[in-house]
Parts: sequence; C-alpha cells; structure tokens
Amino acid sequence: MMNVFIIGLGLIGGSFALDIQLGFKNATIYGIDSNEEHGDLALERGIIHQKATLSELKNADIVIIAIPVDVSREVILKTLDNISDTCLVFDVGSTKELICDAVKNHPKRRNFLATHPIAGTEFSGPNAALTNLFRNKTNIICEVEKTAFKLQEKALDIFSKLGMRIRYMDPKSHDKHIAYVSHLSHISSFMLGKTVIEKEKNERDIFDMAGSGFASTVRLAKSSPAMWTPIFEQNKENVIESLNEYIHNLQQFKTLLENNDFPEIYIEMENTNHIKQILNGILEGIPQQ
Amino acid sequence: MMNVFIIGLGLIGGSFALDIQLGFKNATIYGIDSNEEHGDLALERGIIHQKATLSELKNADIVIIAIPVDVSREVILKTLDNISDTCLVFDVGSTKELICDAVKNHPKRRNFLATHPIAGTEFSGPNAALTNLFRNKTNIICEVEKTAFKLQEKALDIFSKLGMRIRYMDPKSHDKHIAYVSHLSHISSFMLGKTVIEKEKNERDIFDMAGSGFASTVRLAKSSPAMWTPIFEQNKENVIESLNEYIHNLQQFKTLLENNDFPEIYIEMENTNHIKQILNGILEGIPQQ
Repeated sequence: MMNVFIIGLGLIGGSFALDIQLGFKNATIYGIDSNEEHGDLALERGIIHQKATLSELKNADIVIIAIPVDVSREVILKTLDNISDTCLVFDVGSTKELICDAVKNHPKRRNFLATHPIAGTEFSGPNAALTNLFRNKTNIICEVEKTAFKLQEKALDIFSKLGMRIRYMDPKSHDKHIAYVSHLSHISSFMLGKTVIEKEKNERDIFDMAGSGFASTVRLAKSSPAMWTPIFEQNKENVIESLNEYIHNLQQFKTLLENNDFPEIYIEMENTNHIKQILNGILEGIPQQ
Repeated sequence: MMNVFIIGLGLIGGSFALDIQLGFKNATIYGIDSNEEHGDLALERGIIHQKATLSELKNADIVIIAIPVDVSREVILKTLDNISDTCLVFDVGSTKELICDAVKNHPKRRNFLATHPIAGTEFSGPNAALTNLFRNKTNIICEVEKTAFKLQEKALDIFSKLGMRIRYMDPKSHDKHIAYVSHLSHISSFMLGKTVIEKEKNERDIFDMAGSGFASTVRLAKSSPAMWTPIFEQNKENVIESLNEYIHNLQQFKTLLENNDFPEIYIEMENTNHIKQILNGILEGIPQQ
C-alpha cells in the first residue's frame, strides 16, 4: 500500500490525485484542504479516497503540497515536522527560491523535494482537475542533491509514470527565467484584459468584434488572483525586471509608429516570427535544441 | 452560373473560396494573386477552379478582395473600373476608414461593400485556407447604405450561407474599437515574444520551461508582417491610443509591485477575471448582452 496525502485539492493537486490513482493501483489518496467544500467535492468526484487532516501525516508515504505559495512555506515546515523518516514531501509551487530557503535548515530537509510542474489551465478548484494534465510537460526540480537518494527515486517514479520530462535547475535561475516565460505572460494578459474592459465597459456589444486572437491573448486573465498574487510577491524583483523590458519594447514600438518607421516595424515582427519554432517545441512537448 | 473572382488567395481569400464552392454548387471560382506560386498552389489544392487576371473581371458576378490593406485600395478602385453594372465587390480588410474614403467618389461606389470578417488564424498563404473558418464568426459591414440594395442581398446570401453573424458599424467606430479588441492584442503578443526571445536568446533550453500559457499569449506573434504592417499604418492613431492605455496599465501594475501593494494587485486581477464571461461569448459564438 502507498498512502499519498495531497494538501490542496485544486487544479494541480486534484490532477496529481487522478493520475496517481490511474498509475498506482496500490495508492490510497488522502485529501487535505482548508476549504471544506473543496474536500467534499474532491471526495464526491472520486479525486480522493478520503478526507484527512495534518495530524494523520505520520502515516503518509508521500505528501504533495499544492497550495498557493504564500501559505506553502508554513505548511511544508509543519508537514516535515509531522512525517515519518521514509516519507517523501514535494511541493509544486511556481516560485522556488523562498521555498528552498525556508526549508534549508529543517532536520527533515532530505525528505523534501522542490518541484515546479509547468502544467495547468486558467481554471482552479477541484472541478478543474484533469487526468493526463502532466503528460509531456516539463517538471523543474530544484536542489535535487539535497533530497535523500531513495526519495528522489520515489519522486521520479511518480513523475515518469505521469509522463513528465525532468529538468534540474537551481532555485534562483528557476525564478529568474520563469518570470519571463510564465509570470510576465500573466501580467500582459491581465493588463490587456483590463485595458479593453475599461475602454469598452459601456459598449458591451463591442466584444462581438473580438475574435479568437483576442481570446488567446487574454486567456490567462481568467487565472486565480489567490494563486497569482503571492507568486508575484515572492518573485517581485524578477517580475519587475521582466516588466521593465516588456514596457520598454512596447514604448519603442510606439515610437516606431509615431515616427512612421513602418519598414522597422516590419522587421521587428519578422524577427519575432521566429517564435514559431519555439512554440512548436512547446506544443509538441519536444525539448528544444 | 455564378462567376466568383477572388483577389488574394491567402488564409481569408482561400477560405472564402472553399466555403463558396461548398455552399454554391453553381459557382466557378477564379483566382487572382500577384504571387504566381500562390495561384498555382490554390489551383492544385482545388481552392480555385482556374487562375485569372484583372482583365477578366468584366465577367465577374462577385469579386472578393482579400489582400493586405496597403494594396487593397488601389486594387478595389481598379476592380470597380473593370466590372459590369451588376457585379458585387467586397473587401475583407482589417481597417475600414481609409478604404471607405478611397471609394467614396467612385462612379461604381454602389457596387462595393466594405466588410471585415473577424476570423482567421496566425497562419497565412493558400495552405492556411480552411473550410468553415467563418462559421459563427462576426462580419462587420460598414456604410451598408452606400451599397445597391440588390447587391447587399447578394452579399448577405453568401455571408449567411457561410454561417456568419452580421454587425453594422460606421468605419470610424470600426477602426477605433478594432484597435482595442484585435490590433493591440497583436502588438502585446509580438512584444512579449520579443522580450522573452531577447532575454533568453543564449539559453534556448529555457523554452523548455514555457508552458501552454506562454504559447497562448504569444500565439499571435506568428502572424504575417506583410499583413500587419499596413494595418498598423492605416490605423495608427487608434493603435497608438490603445498602446498608451496598455502601457499605462502595465506601469501602474509595476508601481503596485514596487510599493508592495499586493491587496490592490489582487483586486486588479479579480476585476479583470470578469473577462471570463466575455470570452465565453466569443468562444461560443454567442452575442454578449
């Protein structure tokens, strides 16, 4: 038997629960969520086998922590306080530096693995949980050398069964790069949504004019503020840096427009078209060379 | 028999050709493209029945002009010079004010209808043509009262057979609103792509970290510079206005980050989450109330 405790039964926690049930027939999934309704819903939907509390963690073989990053540090420490010596604990948060820093002196540091599966949708809560969410997705593991070898193996067994490809990275680099390839996208999308809603608030039928291109660029503006506010807080410096560069590029584009420098605008777009090859890699789940 | 001439055999022109073949069995589709290879490819793929030249337009019942907006004005005027009295000409360009202005004094003004089907993908050329591209999409018609009644009917017959819903709008309002719900999205996407490529140009494997959220927000950065440069040129004032507001909102968000005002960041995102309802309308093709 394998006792898997999942703390946080939202999109990511719930999706782990579903895939672990499919991949490990001997697993019992225990669910913990500060929101009672989420726990009930996860139970009803068969995402978990039973609800549990933090006091039962001593029976856990694996604990997955999938809650917003502002509360996860405290919960990770409390979890490490309560587990057995052979238990693996991993978190799936979108920031890694503060989390790795928080656990560094804990006597059970070697029971912990810091991970960030790059997977998700713009939806949240247990109803957003999906099977196969992680297939062909990247999972970034930080400070792998600080985790006990046997527990690394246990984690990799799960990640490989779920179809993830693994990348190892230090937490500082993770946070710096993820600001560009993920956090900035969310801000650009939220602010695009805001700009258009502000402009058109009194002309609702204007949205009839919006097509799939608009839908695609503002999709992330549906994301959960409860998840994203603490991410921006924990990764503030990197996010500000990426925003500065983004704003600079937008201003430069505006200057080209104002100066009627359309040949240069053409070149800017043509150079960026190169994103095609990059996106093909992402969408096919094939690592880039 | 119905002779349909399509000038410009790219994504939009090619998709019209395919759907008109399906919807009107009596139609013969003639294709005109300044790029000989596109004409050949469209013929090979069965998108058109035969290649043609501008000198044959006198035999046309319908002419569809689907070329970049910088060259379309001249081609529309030349087309109107060459058609019979009963021929309908419509364009499908993404800007409308300059086009309506260019034709306003032409003796065949009543043979012309200015339209903008809000449909497309980020791909271009005859290989990008799709059947059913226009189904449940909005088609904006400008200055409908300036088109002969019988030719309005002819156009609406086609648009309805292709499954489009019609919105009437003056060209000035079209250009103003489309800057927000379409043109700005393209710039935000191109500049996001640029910012990330610049930052990560020496670290290609960083793109392994990018997920479907990044792919969604930069999808439009694959769009054709040949199509988009003249759109930005023709709609320059409105685009600059929308860019100013977008940059302002990004700067304000950055200030909130710098001031550690995370409660306000939460509220900003929560207010913008409202985009969900708007997007549902777009994606389901249902008009918003």
